[in-house]
Amino acid sequence: MIKLGNDFENFKTWDKENYFHPWEGLEVQGAGKADRTFSEYAEGIYVYDEHGNKVIDGPGGMWCMQLGYGNTEIADAMADQARKMAYCSPFSEATSVSADFAHAIAERAPGDLNRVYFTTGGSTAVDTAIRFVHFRNNLLGKPSKKRIITRAHAYHGGTYLTASLSGKPSERQWFDTDQVIPHFLPDVNAFRRPQGMSIDAFLDEKVADLENAILELGANNVAAFIAEPVLGSGGVIVPPAGYHKRCLEVCRKHDVLYISDEVVTGFGRLGHWFASEELFGITPDIITCAKGLTSGYAPMGAAIFSDRLFKDIEGDVAKDVYFTSGYTYSGHPVCAVAGLKNIEIFERDGILEHVQKVTPHFQKRLRQMLELPLIADVRGMGLVGCIECSLTRGGQASPEIDATIGAVIDARCQELGLMVRPYGNMAIFSPPLVITKAQIDTMFDILTEGVERATRELLGQGLELEAERA
Amino acid sequence: MIKLGNDFENFKTWDKENYFHPWEGLEVQGAGKADRTFSEYAEGIYVYDEHGNKVIDGPGGMWCMQLGYGNTEIADAMADQARKMAYCSPFSEATSVSADFAHAIAERAPGDLNRVYFTTGGSTAVDTAIRFVHFRNNLLGKPSKKRIITRAHAYHGGTYLTASLSGKPSERQWFDTDQVIPHFLPDVNAFRRPQGMSIDAFLDEKVADLENAILELGANNVAAFIAEPVLGSGGVIVPPAGYHKRCLEVCRKHDVLYISDEVVTGFGRLGHWFASEELFGITPDIITCAKGLTSGYAPMGAAIFSDRLFKDIEGDVAKDVYFTSGYTYSGHPVCAVAGLKNIEIFERDGILEHVQKVTPHFQKRLRQMLELPLIADVRGMGLVGCIECSLTRGGQASPEIDATIGAVIDARCQELGLMVRPYGNMAIFSPPLVITKAQIDTMFDILTEGVERATRELLGQGLELEAERA
Repeated sequence: MIKLGNDFENFKTWDKENYFHPWEGLEVQGAGKADRTFSEYAEGIYVYDEHGNKVIDGPGGMWCMQLGYGNTEIADAMADQARKMAYCSPFSEATSVSADFAHAIAERAPGDLNRVYFTTGGSTAVDTAIRFVHFRNNLLGKPSKKRIITRAHAYHGGTYLTASLSGKPSERQWFDTDQVIPHFLPDVNAFRRPQGMSIDAFLDEKVADLENAILELGANNVAAFIAEPVLGSGGVIVPPAGYHKRCLEVCRKHDVLYISDEVVTGFGRLGHWFASEELFGITPDIITCAKGLTSGYAPMGAAIFSDRLFKDIEGDVAKDVYFTSGYTYSGHPVCAVAGLKNIEIFERDGILEHVQKVTPHFQKRLRQMLELPLIADVRGMGLVGCIECSLTRGGQASPEIDATIGAVIDARCQELGLMVRPYGNMAIFSPPLVITKAQIDTMFDILTEGVERATRELLGQGLELEAERA
Repeated sequence: MIKLGNDFENFKTWDKENYFHPWEGLEVQGAGKADRTFSEYAEGIYVYDEHGNKVIDGPGGMWCMQLGYGNTEIADAMADQARKMAYCSPFSEATSVSADFAHAIAERAPGDLNRVYFTTGGSTAVDTAIRFVHFRNNLLGKPSKKRIITRAHAYHGGTYLTASLSGKPSERQWFDTDQVIPHFLPDVNAFRRPQGMSIDAFLDEKVADLENAILELGANNVAAFIAEPVLGSGGVIVPPAGYHKRCLEVCRKHDVLYISDEVVTGFGRLGHWFASEELFGITPDIITCAKGLTSGYAPMGAAIFSDRLFKDIEGDVAKDVYFTSGYTYSGHPVCAVAGLKNIEIFERDGILEHVQKVTPHFQKRLRQMLELPLIADVRGMGLVGCIECSLTRGGQASPEIDATIGAVIDARCQELGLMVRPYGNMAIFSPPLVITKAQIDTMFDILTEGVERATRELLGQGLELEAERA
C-alpha cells in the first residue's frame, strides 16, 4: 500500500485544472471533470495505483519500460552523471558518455548504419530523418525528390510533420496535416484482406501498392518509404512474411530510401536490438528508435544513418555546408548514461535471450485467446500482442461500438490486476521485457477473465457477437 | 584536473565516427575529421575541458543551465523519482509529481495561462502550440484561419514546422521548409534601421508590418503571431520599447492569437519566471518554454495555454473530441521532479532577485564593450548579452568575413578561460544565473581581452575596421 500523503487531493485538482494531457478529451477538460487513475509507485512489471492496487503494466509504460520499474542501477547512473556534468552542448562540444552511447548504438545497428543523431524521442527522430533526406537531396541536386511514402494505420510521431505521416484516422480527424510530402499506401493488415484472397496474393498486392505509388508519383519525386516493421499503435499489424524484403528491393530499384521506424520494435521488444535485419532480413538506410533506448527512464530518441548516405555529400558539394538543425537536448549526457546502463544490463542479464526464450509461450497464449467468442483476430510478435474484437448491434458494426470494447476490456482487466492499452475494438499489450513465464501466464489468465467479463457486460447492453469470422 | 582514463582516445574516435552532431559540418563528417573539445566535468559556472582547462560557460550550456552545474539536489531528486516510478503514461494515467509541476508552472505564468502541455523541449512545445491553434480553429469552424506570422531572425525550433517558422537564413539554406503556414515579417533590429530613422518611427513601422501582413493575408486566414520577447539565437535582438504591447493590441483587434516563445527568456534569464507580462506588459494567449524549466538537467518543454482558449471549444462542439496528439515522454516524472526541485531552489535561494540585482552591472559591463573598435553594437537584457562586430576587406563586408569574427573571438576567449557562443559576426553569452558580480567582472575582463586579441589577429589578416558606425 502506498502512502499518498495529505496533499493528494491537491494533486488530483491540479491534474484536472493545470495538466493538459496528450489525448485529453475536450469534454473532460477543466476543473472537476477529468478523473484519471493516479500511479505513484512501480516495481518490476507492476504499477501501484492511488488505492494501493497492484496491476501488471500491460502497455509497459508506453512500449518503453523494457527493464521494468525500480531499476536502481539506471537511477544511480543518471544521478552520478547529473552531479558530474548534467549538460553538454551537442552543437559545439562533445562529451565521452554521449560519444560512447552513439558508438554502442552503431555497433548494434545493422550494416553500415553507423551515424547516430540524437533527439528527445521518437517523433523528433523521425522528423529529423525526413529533414535529413530532404537536405541530402537538395545537396545532390534533386530538389523535386521529396515525397515520403507511408501507410494507412502507421504511427510516426506527434510533430506536425510526423503526424502528417501517420495514418491513424482518429489522430487526423481534427488536425491539419501537411498535404505536400506524404503519400499513403493502403492497409497491409491481412486480417482485412478481401474474402477469398490468399496471403500470397495479398502480399503481391501490397508490394505492388508501393511500386505503383512510386511509378505514379515519379521516382524523381519520391525521397523515401517509411515503415514500422510491425505497425505498433495502429493495431500491431504484422505484414505478410517477405513484405519488407520485397519493399526494400522496390525501393533500391527506384533510388528511394528505406526508413525503418523501430521506435516500438527496437531494443529488445522483438528479441533483438533491432528487428529490421535479424527478423525481416533488411538493412534499411535509416533506422529511427526511442522508447526502449533508455528503458523509458529518460527522454531520448535517435535517427541512425547509413554511412553510405554521406558518401556522396562529403566531397566538393559539402564545402561550407552544415546540417543546421538540432535540439538543445540532443545527446543529453544524463539520458546517454541511462541508455549506456540499459545496454549494459541487457547484456549482463541476457534480456534479448530471455525475450527470445519466453516469446513462443507469450505468442502461444496470445493465439489461444482466439477461442474466446468476442475475439475476431489476434496479432503479435515478440513481446507485443493485440486482440481485436467484434460486436454488432442489429447486425451492424460501428466505430462507436468498437470504441466501447477496448475500454471495457481495459476496465475489467484493471479490476483483476492488469492494465492494457485500449484502441478502438482492440486491446494492446507490450509488457516489460523482464516479465517471467509465470507472469506471462498470470497476464493472459487475467486477460481471458477480463475479456469474458467484458463480453457478458457488452452482450448485456444488447450488442451481439458477429455471426461469422473474417 | 580531470582524469580521463585510457579509453579517451576511443571516445574521440567514436565521437567522430558515430555521433552525428547538430550543426555538424558536412566537410568534417566521418572518421578522423571533426575535432571537438571534450567537456567532462563541470561545477557552478565552470566547465572543465579534456585538458583540464577551466572555462566560464558563457552560453550557460545552451541558454539552459540556470542553476549551474553540479547541483546535487536536482540529481538526487531525479534518482529518487527514477527509483520510485521512472515513467507514467501521460496519455491515460496521472502521477502526482507531473500534476504538481503543471500547477507550479501555471501559478507562475501570467494571467489565465493555466493549462500546461508538456513536451520534451522547446521545438516540440512550439510545434504543439501551432497544432493546437489549428485544431482549435477547425473546431470553431474556421478552417482557413491557419497562417502563422513570424519574423526574420526568429528561432522557434528544429522540427520541420518550427524550423519553417524560424527566420535565421543560415538554418534554412539547405533545408526544405513549409511554404503554406509561415508568413515572415522583416527584421525588428533597430541597429539595422535605415540611417536617420528615429526609434519611434522604426517602432511604428514594425507594428505596421504586423498589421499590414494581417490585412494582406486576411484576418480570417491568420491564426497566430509568434514572437520571442527577445530574439535569442538570431542575435539577441531586443525590439524597441512598447513593441510587444502594441503587437498584442493589433492581434486582439484582428482575432489573431499571440504566442510568446519564452524558451530563452523564461525561468529567470531576464529576472522573472516569464518576461512577457513583467517586462513587456503583455499577457499572451500561449507561452512556450523549455531550457531553464529544468535548468538543463533533464529534457523538457511546455506549452502553456490560456484557459480562455478552451472556453469556446468545451461545449457541444467538444463531444467525442480528443486532442489526439502527444509524446511518450510528455510530463516524464523524472523530468518533472527536476523541474520542481529547480523551482524550489530558485525560490529558496532567491535566484530571480539575484538576477535582478546583478543585471544592471552585467548590462553596464556589456555597454562598455562598445568602446572597443571592433564592436559595432551591443545588445542585451537580463543575463543575456551579444556583441556584434564589423570588419571589411577593401571596404567591403561579406558573410565570409562575418563568419570568421565570432569564431576567432570564441577561440581567443577560450584560451583565456571563457566560452562564448559565436554566431556570424556576433558572440552571444547567457551564463548560469548563479554567476556572481565578481564572476561577471571576470567574464567581461576576459571577453575584452579576447576581443582585443581577436582584433589584432583579424587586422593582421588584412581586414579593416569599418570607418563609420551605424
